[in-house]
Amino acid sequence: MSVDALVTPALLVDADALAHNLAVMAQALPGARMRPHVKAHKCTELARQQLAAGHAGFTCATVREVEGMAAAGLGDDLLLANEVVAPVVARLGAVAASGARVTVAVDSEATIDAAVAGGVREVVIDVNVGLPRCGCPPSEAGRLAAYARSRGLRVRGVMGYEGHVVGIEARGVRAELVEGCMQLLLHAAADVDGDDGLVSAGGTGTYDLNTWATEIQAGSYALMDTAYGKLGLPFRQALTVLATVVSVSDGWVVADCGLKAFGMDHGNPTVPGGTVWFCSDEHLTFAPDAAGPMRVGDRVRVVPAHVDPTVAYHERMHLVEGDAVIETWPVDLRNW
Amino acid sequence: MSVDALVTPALLVDADALAHNLAVMAQALPGARMRPHVKAHKCTELARQQLAAGHAGFTCATVREVEGMAAAGLGDDLLLANEVVAPVVARLGAVAASGARVTVAVDSEATIDAAVAGGVREVVIDVNVGLPRCGCPPSEAGRLAAYARSRGLRVRGVMGYEGHVVGIEARGVRAELVEGCMQLLLHAAADVDGDDGLVSAGGTGTYDLNTWATEIQAGSYALMDTAYGKLGLPFRQALTVLATVVSVSDGWVVADCGLKAFGMDHGNPTVPGGTVWFCSDEHLTFAPDAAGPMRVGDRVRVVPAHVDPTVAYHERMHLVEGDAVIETWPVDLRNW
Repeated sequence: MSVDALVTPALLVDADALAHNLAVMAQALPGARMRPHVKAHKCTELARQQLAAGHAGFTCATVREVEGMAAAGLGDDLLLANEVVAPVVARLGAVAASGARVTVAVDSEATIDAAVAGGVREVVIDVNVGLPRCGCPPSEAGRLAAYARSRGLRVRGVMGYEGHVVGIEARGVRAELVEGCMQLLLHAAADVDGDDGLVSAGGTGTYDLNTWATEIQAGSYALMDTAYGKLGLPFRQALTVLATVVSVSDGWVVADCGLKAFGMDHGNPTVPGGTVWFCSDEHLTFAPDAAGPMRVGDRVRVVPAHVDPTVAYHERMHLVEGDAVIETWPVDLRNW
Repeated sequence: MSVDALVTPALLVDADALAHNLAVMAQALPGARMRPHVKAHKCTELARQQLAAGHAGFTCATVREVEGMAAAGLGDDLLLANEVVAPVVARLGAVAASGARVTVAVDSEATIDAAVAGGVREVVIDVNVGLPRCGCPPSEAGRLAAYARSRGLRVRGVMGYEGHVVGIEARGVRAELVEGCMQLLLHAAADVDGDDGLVSAGGTGTYDLNTWATEIQAGSYALMDTAYGKLGLPFRQALTVLATVVSVSDGWVVADCGLKAFGMDHGNPTVPGGTVWFCSDEHLTFAPDAAGPMRVGDRVRVVPAHVDPTVAYHERMHLVEGDAVIETWPVDLRNW
């Protein structure tokens, strides 16, 4: 099947780029050194490729992702790297009871109590390493670990995401800051004394700089986006949104992809061969270069600025080699 | 059922506010003077409420929306207010062949040829009235209408969306600009001499200012968002995203709704009782006011900045009266 037969907008994944990205990561961080984050692609078929590359443990962001991964037979070691409470935590416990291995992040007595009530048996202590989001202060980690154990939970170790660092373009600054973050996390890890010694952290932007974590939670590396593309990483842009030119005016053209096809928090997507003017709900208006698409019916491959919220808009992704669609994968982990 | 039992993030629609909005619009623009745009809510059950309010014709943005509306028995008069070409235009023709009335926007010979090839029988000439997006120059409309008729199509009239005007906060400026846009459209309408005399235009921001169009294509008015909320319109905020506080730190709290729960092109959503710091993929970090949510497990109702791309992330919306869920409607028109 040719991409020409696809209804647009449609997610395309370049098979060669994906294979390259998975291979580069598996070489840098083989096996359990890497715990791929499925939130970036929300696709069990893609996760299966990551398993084939040697990574059996996965990071999830939602209970739905944990459920879907377990149902797909990818539940050997699922870390839900977010806090969850009632009512959804009971669904997490149900997955654990079904035989998958489920670990959840906790950062307070309340989330520890929720894990216990929900039937989850293993946790990591989530530590704030500088990003004002979830995670307890490093000095609290030991106390929370003791509390979790007193409630009957197994404490596998710590987690601390340097999310404020992973996107910094200057590599030297990124390296310096990640070290500071990880010093905080290692102090907490010593206090927690995790049963599995887990120190889970990192992302695509720090996968090779964060040498303190025992495992890296990168997700974007598989598909990439223009935001991470600025960092000079060895990963290739695998993801595009295929769109069709539906209108041509004097000075601009319009393609049929818009705000419901792209996560917009990192700004406009990019059109190779054109300059983007703006995104509307269903449309992308851009000025084509001299060699750019100029006729109604022309197809363009638009590069998202941020992979995660882009993929979450789409039902499926098409694995392509050039113009040939070789497989179609459902984005089966989306929604809640 | 109580909203407390809902897994978050979840779309809530305040039943009173929705009923108010539909009633206000039906009074201002009764019956066929209003052609509700379903792209804003993507929900046939909500469209059914708009039909009950007296509007039997609908505006759609995608072929999928046309298919879904027709399948739901809401296909008396569906205007796809965007250009479409092969291959998806054939699906549009199939809906028309099934007995629904389908009209599509065209703005070029190529889109007219596509409509013919796809089996669509009725069109409107889409005219550019100032927004650099789709639509032919006003001076071209008559020529395109003649071409469409020569290809056997019925030309119902013209369409021209003043999308660059609808969001302007100063009502006087908005009024002045919409008049200029509509003068362009009326000139084109005269040249086109539509068989049904349709002059379709407008949006929520100009529904009462655009007195030149024969019908208004407003969509956002039913659910509203903070962007349109700045315009002082008589419509109430009906849509919120219910979220759960999962982490509390010294100075900020984190709720479980993020970039995959909100369209972000109009900026951050708003938390009543708090100041938003930033949105992450799955999280909203905000500083609560003194009276704001402070405990893990607290629920917050977050107001989206832009309704359309927010709804498109969600599988369903819950109609609520206070804390009671009275109905749950699938967002059945999303995807492509």
